[in-house]
Amino acid sequence: MKAYVYVTPKQTVLDPQGQAIHNALRKMQYRGVEDVRQGKYFVLRLDNGLDRAAAQAEVERIARDVLTNPVIEEFRFHLEDGQ
Amino acid sequence: MKAYVYVTPKQTVLDPQGQAIHNALRKMQYRGVEDVRQGKYFVLRLDNGLDRAAAQAEVERIARDVLTNPVIEEFRFHLEDGQ
Repeated sequence: MKAYVYVTPKQTVLDPQGQAIHNALRKMQYRGVEDVRQGKYFVLRLDNGLDRAAAQAEVERIARDVLTNPVIEEFRFHLEDGQ
Repeated sequence: MKAYVYVTPKQTVLDPQGQAIHNALRKMQYRGVEDVRQGKYFVLRLDNGLDRAAAQAEVERIARDVLTNPVIEEFRFHLEDGQ
């Protein structure tokens, strides 16, 4: 099973990386982009011995405690079967 | 319209960030994770004047030319309607 975890800066938090990319796109004449936000993205390959409920709990714990800074970031994740 | 762009290291490329996270998880006694890969994730808010085909072409160009290093990374993206 694989878990896909997405971590993004909270809407209320400034995102200087995203702003830098937005400015670069403007200078490079790319049209039609009004805002850019950058986040992180993790793919966790899980032990096949875990059932879905256990995987759900374990990934939520890992995402909350290790992958996310709860002061400025939020996360979401989903599980997918298969290698 | 919003574009969600995911950039990940190619399967054949070492991912030291992912490995560091994997090692940390092991030391912290998290069970059941066999591999971790880290990527980047971008949310682009697009001008509503763009139609879907134009948005598709523009985001593909941006992802390929600006957001991804084609030597070591690959990308995928999808569009979603709404603010």
